[in-house]
Amino acid sequence: MALATGSDPAPFTAADYAARMRRAARAAEEAGLDALLIAPGPDLLWLTGYRPVETERLTLLVLRAGREPVLVVPTLEAPDAAASAGAGALTLRDWTDGQDPYEAAGSLLAPAGRFGISDNAWAMHLLGLHRRHPEARHLALGEALPMLRAVKDAAELERLAAAGAAADAAFEEIRALPFAGRREKEVAADLDTLLRRHGHSQVDFTIVGSGPNGANPHHEAGERVIERGDMVVLDFGGLKHGYGSDTTRTVHVGEPTEEERRVHDLVRQAQEAGFRAVRPGAACQDVDRAAREVIDAAGYGEYFIHRTGHGIGVTTHEPPYMIEGEEQPLVPGMCFSVEPGIYLPGRFGVRIEDIVTVTEDGGRRLNRTEREMVLVE
Amino acid sequence: MALATGSDPAPFTAADYAARMRRAARAAEEAGLDALLIAPGPDLLWLTGYRPVETERLTLLVLRAGREPVLVVPTLEAPDAAASAGAGALTLRDWTDGQDPYEAAGSLLAPAGRFGISDNAWAMHLLGLHRRHPEARHLALGEALPMLRAVKDAAELERLAAAGAAADAAFEEIRALPFAGRREKEVAADLDTLLRRHGHSQVDFTIVGSGPNGANPHHEAGERVIERGDMVVLDFGGLKHGYGSDTTRTVHVGEPTEEERRVHDLVRQAQEAGFRAVRPGAACQDVDRAAREVIDAAGYGEYFIHRTGHGIGVTTHEPPYMIEGEEQPLVPGMCFSVEPGIYLPGRFGVRIEDIVTVTEDGGRRLNRTEREMVLVE
Repeated sequence: MALATGSDPAPFTAADYAARMRRAARAAEEAGLDALLIAPGPDLLWLTGYRPVETERLTLLVLRAGREPVLVVPTLEAPDAAASAGAGALTLRDWTDGQDPYEAAGSLLAPAGRFGISDNAWAMHLLGLHRRHPEARHLALGEALPMLRAVKDAAELERLAAAGAAADAAFEEIRALPFAGRREKEVAADLDTLLRRHGHSQVDFTIVGSGPNGANPHHEAGERVIERGDMVVLDFGGLKHGYGSDTTRTVHVGEPTEEERRVHDLVRQAQEAGFRAVRPGAACQDVDRAAREVIDAAGYGEYFIHRTGHGIGVTTHEPPYMIEGEEQPLVPGMCFSVEPGIYLPGRFGVRIEDIVTVTEDGGRRLNRTEREMVLVE
Repeated sequence: MALATGSDPAPFTAADYAARMRRAARAAEEAGLDALLIAPGPDLLWLTGYRPVETERLTLLVLRAGREPVLVVPTLEAPDAAASAGAGALTLRDWTDGQDPYEAAGSLLAPAGRFGISDNAWAMHLLGLHRRHPEARHLALGEALPMLRAVKDAAELERLAAAGAAADAAFEEIRALPFAGRREKEVAADLDTLLRRHGHSQVDFTIVGSGPNGANPHHEAGERVIERGDMVVLDFGGLKHGYGSDTTRTVHVGEPTEEERRVHDLVRQAQEAGFRAVRPGAACQDVDRAAREVIDAAGYGEYFIHRTGHGIGVTTHEPPYMIEGEEQPLVPGMCFSVEPGIYLPGRFGVRIEDIVTVTEDGGRRLNRTEREMVLVE
């Protein structure tokens, strides 16, 4: 059972979801969109609490400013939709196998309208809607309204902080366990168990990249037996109370070499620089630049092969992205990772990652474990 | 551990994947498509053995007749892509955060071409490709080339038969366990355990719909305690050796009423009629019509609220669909469910489902358990 202390947060209500839907519809109107077309996945979950799987059968939430939200849903999924927390704040419109679902959805929409559609809506559904209204213009929400879910309210921040604290507790326990002589997969399994024990309902990733495997940022965890002398990248997270955790620490088994210390310290400084760049009004790319500058200046720029961070909320990967070219200004309540890394092919990798939320005058870390190199056995 | 008897099937090789990719590219050409654009998910898995998660970072396999396949992939996922079984049969083209992935993919494509794109490709990627080539025309593969994965070869049929046999073995064990007094969720957990014990690596659904819950075809399994006198719909399946199982039986706890017997027998006859309609050259809708006719004739037509079946392969839900309006002729090697049902709201439901494969002269069931009503305790 979960060791999580403190009481569980109160569930979101139909009124909470109604407020989110109104806010989203208003934001759409301000962005010049006639409606939002919301597919199953994180957008729909955040707006309604309903969590169907996306399939070839169309489920689509249609949000229009000043109109009641309508959820187009297959008849046989209507009972589940009606049982979701947000159902009291919307109208269900069901369609049955053999009917044209794009007719059901399309009849709610202006034929030549301009619509924002969930990034992860299936291409077949977008093409079906487009066939119904060839004059309509569709824009991916990640482009048209990228910050739809980005600014977290107090109830969401509370959940994100709790998820971060749970991940930190998992790290404190894993660092005390033996590494040398165990397979990456065994350590990953322990991380999974620890995250769940600390209240996670879902574990999204438990990366254990030892020695040369650490130089592949998306290596998961394999059969390699961890040895003394290895750097080990530990990157793990999932969902607790419906909100995400994601943290990385790079530990060393036994004594590190001078170069390992130097590279680790460089990444730590880059992470610190990225964190210090977080403040309202700064651009997302400023966070990336601040972290990258430290690594570039030390001559390791070509080994930092990914962006500096990504947002987090009801998913562990969402806007805003801390990446060159992203000029979106930071706003209090935004939450995202700051996670620079250096990857030396065939040798080792180092990454350090905290979730950070934007405050009124800077940033606040939701992960608090040691960022200096931790030595393990 | 898995109880599966017999040896595991040989893994698919780069040569197998190369043959599938060549076949798909040829089928695309015959369908008047300039290329296939394959997203992470079942299409990509079937064509290459590579199984990344679809994210906001574009991964896209481009198949063109007579050209080597190209997999556009984020740099940090390139090592995983290169390690997949099909990688030897394609060229990787990686792109790095900050570059435009639609430029990387678009440069492979004719600007005004006609392309088939995976049904489940993300809308944001389709819109990104469309922005790069506004004159291009995109069609969902489910429409343009719906039968891409539908006709199974001998190695695939062997896997589907093994998955079906494993699901049948799970049913034989579950029917001997107590039902009355246990929660639906407990029975569902047993089904999950049994499927895994019989070699499933993944369980996709374990529906236990007791009493009135059985009248909701997509009810999963809840807290309801099963009682004597309940009908219980058991619909379960997943993947074994990468191929799907999906079977439904409706059991009764103790003695059924006259009406329950009649409704169950009607569904059994409908299922039999659907099965008998399976033969090369018959249309998919003929299977649906044959099953529906039995139920309509008995006056229960309005309570059969879904199509009669769906294909199965590397997923448990894919074309061909047995539905009115689907004129696709059946071809030997196609595999799909035949699963009529009757759902009496607030009272009970009955569904009976077998996976059926088309043979040279009819159909062959891959599920063989009792289709008469099974009484449980």
